[in-house]
Amino acid sequence: MNIVLASSSPRRKELMEMLEVPNLKILPAKGEEIPPEHVSPGELVKALSRAKAGEVAALCEPDDVIIGADTIVWVDGQAYGKPRDEEHAARMLRRLSGDCHEVYTGVTVIRGESCISQFERSLVRFRKLEEDEIQHYIATGEPMDKAGAYGAQGRGALFVEHIEGDFFNVMGLPLCRLGKMLKEQGVNIL
Amino acid sequence: MNIVLASSSPRRKELMEMLEVPNLKILPAKGEEIPPEHVSPGELVKALSRAKAGEVAALCEPDDVIIGADTIVWVDGQAYGKPRDEEHAARMLRRLSGDCHEVYTGVTVIRGESCISQFERSLVRFRKLEEDEIQHYIATGEPMDKAGAYGAQGRGALFVEHIEGDFFNVMGLPLCRLGKMLKEQGVNIL
Repeated sequence: MNIVLASSSPRRKELMEMLEVPNLKILPAKGEEIPPEHVSPGELVKALSRAKAGEVAALCEPDDVIIGADTIVWVDGQAYGKPRDEEHAARMLRRLSGDCHEVYTGVTVIRGESCISQFERSLVRFRKLEEDEIQHYIATGEPMDKAGAYGAQGRGALFVEHIEGDFFNVMGLPLCRLGKMLKEQGVNIL
Repeated sequence: MNIVLASSSPRRKELMEMLEVPNLKILPAKGEEIPPEHVSPGELVKALSRAKAGEVAALCEPDDVIIGADTIVWVDGQAYGKPRDEEHAARMLRRLSGDCHEVYTGVTVIRGESCISQFERSLVRFRKLEEDEIQHYIATGEPMDKAGAYGAQGRGALFVEHIEGDFFNVMGLPLCRLGKMLKEQGVNIL
């Protein structure tokens, strides 16, 4: 039995390694599913995580356990994904500055015929950012591959004043919830 | 000018490295100060962080910036430090199970004659732990060198259902606050 992480995110891989999960395999999903429209952010990330896990499950052994996850930053009723370019990143960071936003991660765990999908929501408050801090941060390159244009586990930590919820959700994988879901599927990773 | 971290904590060192702080030096304080009694948890950790930073400042160059920090888990009006032995760790974890506790970190930044001390408080909620999970966790060795007998940045992440406040405070160094304090002392680490 392998535990298969259907994700190309280096943060998620690091988190699974931090937990020293045995028999871990990384098999990124292409994730080319078209996201459903007019759904709540929780339903959106659940659907996207299910698509990723389902895509990879088709390539796995019958007794493998497959984990899919999808994270979005949610502001003003819309999803912030990865920035297209530096100007897009700057616009996102200006919007997040001095304000609260939500982070949603959907998680799907598939084992054989059983498929569970759940989501986790965290509230994140940024401190006020100066324009030169935004430019400086973008110049580090850190924002470019991250939903909402920041990494809470990098220099972006300097912006995050307060969170409410699961911190690891903000990093892209809510570990406490994942542990419970794996347990439901008969896998104990502690 | 060096930025000197007056701490032996590998977590704090990792966090400073994560921020890619330039000219970082690690110079652990012995921290043999006797803690003040009958003070609030915030005043307690501030005093302890000040003692560590002050001890190391005496060994530094005049233009160095010295950072001291001290973290406690606070439950039932008392401080939980590092467990003495495995049975002590088990008692702490049983107490934290299925309940909320507070984590306080005091931070002191010294530059020349100027010394600032502040503290950060986070609220942490643990999920309910089974006795065999506690035993299993202790057997990994992770709890033994950590205040409150858990590491939020290790397998202990599986226990932390919810936090309110700064996550990095729970890891031992509130980064957003530290960044602001360094700025007040004329040092920009972004």
